[in-house]
Amino acid sequence: MALLFASPDDDPVAWSAALRRRLPDLEVRVFPDIGDPAQIDCALVWLPPPGLLARLPNLRAIFSLGAGVDRLLEDPTLPPDVPLCRMVDPSLTASMAEFVLLHVLRYHRDLDVYEAQQRRAEWRLLLPKPPSATVVGLLGLGELGTASARLLRAHGFGVVGWSRTRKAIEGVRSFAGPAELPAFLEGLSVLVCLLPLTPETRGILNAALFARLPEGARLVNLGRGAHLVEEHLEAALDSGRLAHATLDVFAREPLPKEHPFWRHPKITVTPHVAAYCQPESAAELVVENIRRLRSGRPLLHLVDRARGY
Amino acid sequence: MALLFASPDDDPVAWSAALRRRLPDLEVRVFPDIGDPAQIDCALVWLPPPGLLARLPNLRAIFSLGAGVDRLLEDPTLPPDVPLCRMVDPSLTASMAEFVLLHVLRYHRDLDVYEAQQRRAEWRLLLPKPPSATVVGLLGLGELGTASARLLRAHGFGVVGWSRTRKAIEGVRSFAGPAELPAFLEGLSVLVCLLPLTPETRGILNAALFARLPEGARLVNLGRGAHLVEEHLEAALDSGRLAHATLDVFAREPLPKEHPFWRHPKITVTPHVAAYCQPESAAELVVENIRRLRSGRPLLHLVDRARGY
Repeated sequence: MALLFASPDDDPVAWSAALRRRLPDLEVRVFPDIGDPAQIDCALVWLPPPGLLARLPNLRAIFSLGAGVDRLLEDPTLPPDVPLCRMVDPSLTASMAEFVLLHVLRYHRDLDVYEAQQRRAEWRLLLPKPPSATVVGLLGLGELGTASARLLRAHGFGVVGWSRTRKAIEGVRSFAGPAELPAFLEGLSVLVCLLPLTPETRGILNAALFARLPEGARLVNLGRGAHLVEEHLEAALDSGRLAHATLDVFAREPLPKEHPFWRHPKITVTPHVAAYCQPESAAELVVENIRRLRSGRPLLHLVDRARGY
Repeated sequence: MALLFASPDDDPVAWSAALRRRLPDLEVRVFPDIGDPAQIDCALVWLPPPGLLARLPNLRAIFSLGAGVDRLLEDPTLPPDVPLCRMVDPSLTASMAEFVLLHVLRYHRDLDVYEAQQRRAEWRLLLPKPPSATVVGLLGLGELGTASARLLRAHGFGVVGWSRTRKAIEGVRSFAGPAELPAFLEGLSVLVCLLPLTPETRGILNAALFARLPEGARLVNLGRGAHLVEEHLEAALDSGRLAHATLDVFAREPLPKEHPFWRHPKITVTPHVAAYCQPESAAELVVENIRRLRSGRPLLHLVDRARGY
């Protein structure tokens, strides 16, 4: 039996080496060289071509290379009964928390304002403030949100979080469910979206939500493009409700050349680079799940398809 | 006796309140309302007008609101025998370390490259790397450099430092003196200047130094504008020796409107905002030094004028 590796963004050589160092007898096939599809029993994938997994008659497990599995679930041909596992890995979590900290620091220290001033050759100091005066709201308090919350707290930022169910994280006020969303949004300096994409969270970053934020708040979307209603963001930036936005994810990726976000002076675009896993670290979970698969034990970080993550 | 407060960038109301909360009988005079100059025995200053301090016949101590005192020492009318103290304060130190971390994270996560790509509407992911693969070189390992080194280490970055005398900071290789400068520069991803401005450090960021850095290194100057030879920076950016620079300090401040740095696509300009002290915290040192002055005890953080810091 063999593992199929398929990702446009991950390094197949590093992954094959990391997997085989732990499981020397594992056969790794790299898409598109899949050989006999019947010999493949598990797949390690990020953005695989739609329909690919349906062509594997003996597939027994799908391992996502990313934390979010929404794109996999959107493929109507995805085999409905094959267990699907999301990626949970220390290097993935650390890279996401690091990216969150970077953008919160950027906004806390007003780099967006200074960049705009630089375009006008304007020298003007803003009143500095201590980290405690910057309050960060995290939409999503799972693996990634919790790690981000802890790192931000360690730097002295105010942190509140919102999630489906209430969480207990020291120093972080936890809001839960749609009814508590308005209270969560009050007084935020920076709103960071780390949510999984589900029917409940699709379009959550919309005009009604922006209207609840303080004037001049900043937005960081590291979840999924479909969390954001794009026209509502442009209106909120134009009215000054939001001062700036950093977007790492988009409804269409790669973001099309002609998309206005590329040229918007109040939007920073990054090409879906917030979190990534290092094969040497992330191979641990994949290998553990392959061992569990082959010995008939339950898999780790199994996705609840009805819930969406 | 009274204290004279003179700074274009600090808040006189907050400072007066913070000082008088601790010393209720302290008279604080805010420049330009100095009243009778003979009644002033100490001055708390940042960029005071040249000649101002020379007009105070009974001045017994000068307290700098900044860590660097080079601008004060450049004033030929500065009273030569009045003790001069630099600012050492937890909020100042923390804000500098925070700014260093921000820019190291920015470069570590390639935001400069993604900003350039955004201008061309180009979607391209760079190979991500763990923090240990980014090696930061700190020029200057005093109060600010040491705090920055510790914060960067806590985030997993590689850190080396260079200073006049050798230092012992856990996990940080310390290079000392001009002879060890070339070895210090080898293999750096980001070079951060936090040096005091002295005859030995003036112009230290020059073509010979840039030539020792790896191709594509980034520069962050948070020291003083005169550390940098401006034409050499432009040549190093044009040749690709340096990939990008962030400059917070300039030979002339405010940076003149017509200066080419404002418009250089590989330079980020910030208006001397890296470090600042919160009056509520920094007033502690000033009050302690006023008490010492009035009881005849030695002042803290006295500047060695011959050394320059």
